[in-house]
Amino acid sequence: MVKAVLLINTEMGTDEKVFEKLKELPQVKAVYMVYGLYDIVAVIETDDMDQLREIVYKHVRSSPYVRSTLTMIVVNESEKK
Amino acid sequence: MVKAVLLINTEMGTDEKVFEKLKELPQVKAVYMVYGLYDIVAVIETDDMDQLREIVYKHVRSSPYVRSTLTMIVVNESEKK
Amino acid sequence: MVKAVLLINTEMGTDEKVFEKLKELPQVKAVYMVYGLYDIVAVIETDDMDQLREIVYKHVRSSPYVRSTLTMIVVNESEKK
Amino acid sequence: MVKAVLLINTEMGTDEKVFEKLKELPQVKAVYMVYGLYDIVAVIETDDMDQLREIVYKHVRSSPYVRSTLTMIVVNESEKK
Amino acid sequence: MVKAVLLINTEMGTDEKVFEKLKELPQVKAVYMVYGLYDIVAVIETDDMDQLREIVYKHVRSSPYVRSTLTMIVVNESEKK
Amino acid sequence: MVKAVLLINTEMGTDEKVFEKLKELPQVKAVYMVYGLYDIVAVIETDDMDQLREIVYKHVRSSPYVRSTLTMIVVNESEKK
Amino acid sequence: MVKAVLLINTEMGTDEKVFEKLKELPQVKAVYMVYGLYDIVAVIETDDMDQLREIVYKHVRSSPYVRSTLTMIVVNESEKK
Amino acid sequence: MVKAVLLINTEMGTDEKVFEKLKELPQVKAVYMVYGLYDIVAVIETDDMDQLREIVYKHVRSSPYVRSTLTMIVVNESEKK
Repeated sequence: MVKAVLLINTEMGTDEKVFEKLKELPQVKAVYMVYGLYDIVAVIETDDMDQLREIVYKHVRSSPYVRSTLTMIVVNESEKK
Repeated sequence: MVKAVLLINTEMGTDEKVFEKLKELPQVKAVYMVYGLYDIVAVIETDDMDQLREIVYKHVRSSPYVRSTLTMIVVNESEKK
Repeated sequence: MVKAVLLINTEMGTDEKVFEKLKELPQVKAVYMVYGLYDIVAVIETDDMDQLREIVYKHVRSSPYVRSTLTMIVVNESEKK
Repeated sequence: MVKAVLLINTEMGTDEKVFEKLKELPQVKAVYMVYGLYDIVAVIETDDMDQLREIVYKHVRSSPYVRSTLTMIVVNESEKK
Repeated sequence: MVKAVLLINTEMGTDEKVFEKLKELPQVKAVYMVYGLYDIVAVIETDDMDQLREIVYKHVRSSPYVRSTLTMIVVNESEKK
Repeated sequence: MVKAVLLINTEMGTDEKVFEKLKELPQVKAVYMVYGLYDIVAVIETDDMDQLREIVYKHVRSSPYVRSTLTMIVVNESEKK
Repeated sequence: MVKAVLLINTEMGTDEKVFEKLKELPQVKAVYMVYGLYDIVAVIETDDMDQLREIVYKHVRSSPYVRSTLTMIVVNESEKK
Repeated sequence: MVKAVLLINTEMGTDEKVFEKLKELPQVKAVYMVYGLYDIVAVIETDDMDQLREIVYKHVRSSPYVRSTLTMIVVNESEKK
């Protein structure tokens, strides 16, 4: 299992479209629309590095509404229910 | 209820100390140690803006191991269980 | 009441159009065209987080002349008359 | 008359000290403690470039609590009372 | 007299066009095409802030080949012949 | 002989096209598609500064799929076989 | 096998010490001292993510001469002999 | 002959010390103290890459007042007398 945090900048005015699209991907465990240096933060969980690559390159970076992504692989984590 | 995503840079070599400290704060819903531009990502949930301010300024920014923080208030969110 | 400072980069050559548009929004309390890393700084005051979100997403980020925005929520402030 | 917007990062845990100090300078027309990439935003108004230089270098940058400053000279402005 | 250093990023593949155009402006005292975070560095000298503003906004930022500019007003200088 | 490391950001969804193109240039000694702040890292070795300039400006920066490049000249190096 | 590119900023004046230390680590396949936004670029190859983590956190980030690191996991690569 | 533009950030409050020191180096052809993202801009001219390296690493980066430097090698230039 591989987890990653994506920091996403969207094309101006398309924040909600990107948010809605990400929400529907089963590998996206959480997605936040935020105020600040980035527009959207997504937590992604995949089976392995190959599936992560597919999600990031085929489903996120290929979107015309996504201006840039910063993918950070998770090294250690703690989540509360 | 107010939610925020914190992007944290730690002093070199103290990543784990900061990770462990954040994990214990009840308002920290998730914390990730990551590879990339930032060292730690934390999702924080508080009752209101005043409590968020206390967590960020009293518990995170005042730590000698935290070099810088970037706080992004959540506008919209979707989390899967 | 919620206050925020917006740091805005405009599309090249449209600085004045964005400046004029922001000036007319009643929630924009001050707007500065500046030399430096950002092109325009705006101080915005709204009734609540929902209204701020409307201003930022509907009136600023949706403009074709706005290239990027960085929204920073004000925690504490002092203004002189 | 010269106006400038300063974006300030403070040493961790000293945000309030810097905020209080800036508040007392007569040339500081507004000062905001913010969440985000910067910690404090100050709007400064001086008689000329020499006085601005004195404020920025002698009163802000020489403070041990100020980690970095980004000074942006105002080209055009609009303020509401 | 006002002096400023401009750090310019050009649209990919137009570096030389921007360099040649800047070279011909009489207020551009020096212009360097560089490897690194920026593509072109220009040193500009004008009679006053209004003329600087005209050069930066009318002649540089309005160019379709200029992607972004960062204008830094010179506070103190030393040049050797 | 001159060596340089290029940090490249590609237009969204064109990472592989840029990777494949760089791979075929004989002066590109190594090329990495990466997760993070940059999309592609290339190590380039040329006979002199003029040839480096040709590679960077004619072959990389002129590509419609390359959004930005950051060229860093190598001062000192160690490579293992 | 996991590969990563590290972009490193060193404490001023310690570039060579960090370069020499990295050179000696068997997992560091190439290391470059560069001019630019970063000071040192290292290409690291480890058996798995756990070993990478050990190298990055125990051997690089814990060094008193390393000011910051940006670790980018390699997704795809091509190296010429 | 090699030319480079250095963008320098100084330790808070030491801008003038660094400016004065750079002014005295014969290889520093121009030095500007500026408002903005950087504190000092220096134009350096040396006989070759080795001498540039000596200036940058021995005379600038080793100074306790210099916080960071960004060295950009000049590819093409035009200077007016």
